[in-house]
Amino acid sequence: MPADKTALRDFIISETTSIEEAMRDDLAGALRENDPLLIEVIEYALFGGGKRIRPLLAILAARVCALQDDSIYRLAAAFEYLHVATLVHDDVIDNAKERRGRPSAGEKYGIAAAILAGDWLHARSMHLVGRYGGQVGLGVFCRSTAGMVDGEFLQLRYAADCEITEEQYFAVIHRKTALLIESTCEIGALFAGADEKQRSALTAYGHKLGNAFQVIDDLLDYCGDRLNTGKKTGNDFAEGKVTLPLIRALKAADDNARKHVVDLFSGDRKDPEAYAVLSRMIDENGGFESARDTAESLIEGAIADLDVFSETDDPEGLAMLHGIARYVLKRDR
Amino acid sequence: MPADKTALRDFIISETTSIEEAMRDDLAGALRENDPLLIEVIEYALFGGGKRIRPLLAILAARVCALQDDSIYRLAAAFEYLHVATLVHDDVIDNAKERRGRPSAGEKYGIAAAILAGDWLHARSMHLVGRYGGQVGLGVFCRSTAGMVDGEFLQLRYAADCEITEEQYFAVIHRKTALLIESTCEIGALFAGADEKQRSALTAYGHKLGNAFQVIDDLLDYCGDRLNTGKKTGNDFAEGKVTLPLIRALKAADDNARKHVVDLFSGDRKDPEAYAVLSRMIDENGGFESARDTAESLIEGAIADLDVFSETDDPEGLAMLHGIARYVLKRDR
Repeated sequence: MPADKTALRDFIISETTSIEEAMRDDLAGALRENDPLLIEVIEYALFGGGKRIRPLLAILAARVCALQDDSIYRLAAAFEYLHVATLVHDDVIDNAKERRGRPSAGEKYGIAAAILAGDWLHARSMHLVGRYGGQVGLGVFCRSTAGMVDGEFLQLRYAADCEITEEQYFAVIHRKTALLIESTCEIGALFAGADEKQRSALTAYGHKLGNAFQVIDDLLDYCGDRLNTGKKTGNDFAEGKVTLPLIRALKAADDNARKHVVDLFSGDRKDPEAYAVLSRMIDENGGFESARDTAESLIEGAIADLDVFSETDDPEGLAMLHGIARYVLKRDR
Repeated sequence: MPADKTALRDFIISETTSIEEAMRDDLAGALRENDPLLIEVIEYALFGGGKRIRPLLAILAARVCALQDDSIYRLAAAFEYLHVATLVHDDVIDNAKERRGRPSAGEKYGIAAAILAGDWLHARSMHLVGRYGGQVGLGVFCRSTAGMVDGEFLQLRYAADCEITEEQYFAVIHRKTALLIESTCEIGALFAGADEKQRSALTAYGHKLGNAFQVIDDLLDYCGDRLNTGKKTGNDFAEGKVTLPLIRALKAADDNARKHVVDLFSGDRKDPEAYAVLSRMIDENGGFESARDTAESLIEGAIADLDVFSETDDPEGLAMLHGIARYVLKRDR
């Protein structure tokens, strides 16, 4: 049963409401008697229009493993908390002024408040996973958190390094993005008492989905403006991030073009002209097309990983997992 | 059996060695295949001469509850990890250049590396507590971590506020310092299968010990230089922290002196002359003596809380808990 677009949208709207209710209930208990400013910063960071993809995945992973237990929503909230904690800390690290069209938490409340609010969300996410995800789930979760930090260090290491290999690029994006998505799916499965085959299928699905998600993100950083999405482009170049479209283009390019790219990266990376030249070079060498092909293959693979659920009692849940995977390819921001 | 000074010192040296070995073993496993810079920052932050009081307390709490199980050292490491994670983040927040006579992690490696290394240590501490401290232990631990963040917000709220009450001051130091020490003792007890009476006695001991520890810290921030300890003084005044010696002095002082203090806090708090005037005023109004009396009462209370262990099979462990409590009053840095 393929999910049509309307069914997926309705499902997401209704589940997102339940997820946000669970988050608000949890915060009402956990933040009772806390400093009003702490509460304000946490709420500002959490309720700024996130797509709640991670909680949705945890819920769906549990559903296709045949679970119906409302405390999945509390567990699911943990993945959003951790995701937001990393965004808040990343924005401090990158000195980013904006997030989702609003001032970042650090910009609005100062870096002290932002670092501390991130720490609070981090601790709370562990609390919820420890409570609802069991010891095995907590181990998976903590490994992914630690791995995300490692990914940030790797990214710093490869800054403005045009020699980065495809393997190194995937090592970065796996840690930075895919690990949390993959552990979300895995812990959702564990919560539902999945067997080994189901658990590893969902882990594999999350792994490929997360990688595809980041590849598309890296594409949008170049091509978002062509799609008239209003998404800002050129951030990765400005920050010295060498991503898949460029890696592919460099492979196809001649020595002259390669040398030119190295010069652009060691020059003024905030110059719009330099960015335009780089974009054109990637386009001419097929980098965008090639990166998009890779994202499509990853998504096909992710969907194929779900084949073990062909007999699931919850075909609707399965269709939604397919739908989210396909949505990753269509998203424009 | 009271612990004499030499016995306590020998015990601390030998246990500190075991704790640091456990930390190094744990890191060797957990950081394998991680970015070399991440490993370097973590090791720099962890092995800079900490006193390892928190791990010692976890081990002793477990011992007086009749446990001998070597994995207590792994659990104990978690409390040092979390403590160091908070120090590293606090130094970023306070823009502190030094920590224990060396450049702070943020100063040496930059704030990106420091924030991320703190996050890694935070995640790893949760991992260890989840693994060795059980679900109840993890709940206690996460609540204390979240409470520490709340304490930092409270502290920001009361900055340079000379109207802060004693109750508010204790609310801040409880969250900021005592909560972690108290949960360390509690989780050590839980690990050893303590009964309810033992668990609450150790929690109460940790609570009073932690509060006394911070009261002494706040005293040393004024009086450390008189003791020729080389500890820098005047930081709290510079940062606008109104601590117990001043609160007590303000209570005893006349209106003129009180008004003068308010003026000092709204003036240049880095002026050594202002600090000298403030110190003298606190001294003349008995603030130091009164705060020290409170620390002594807290320590007496902490020792009395341990009476339930008078029949323990490990009188040496009990003597060390007494010794650490008394040490808090004697410490000079």
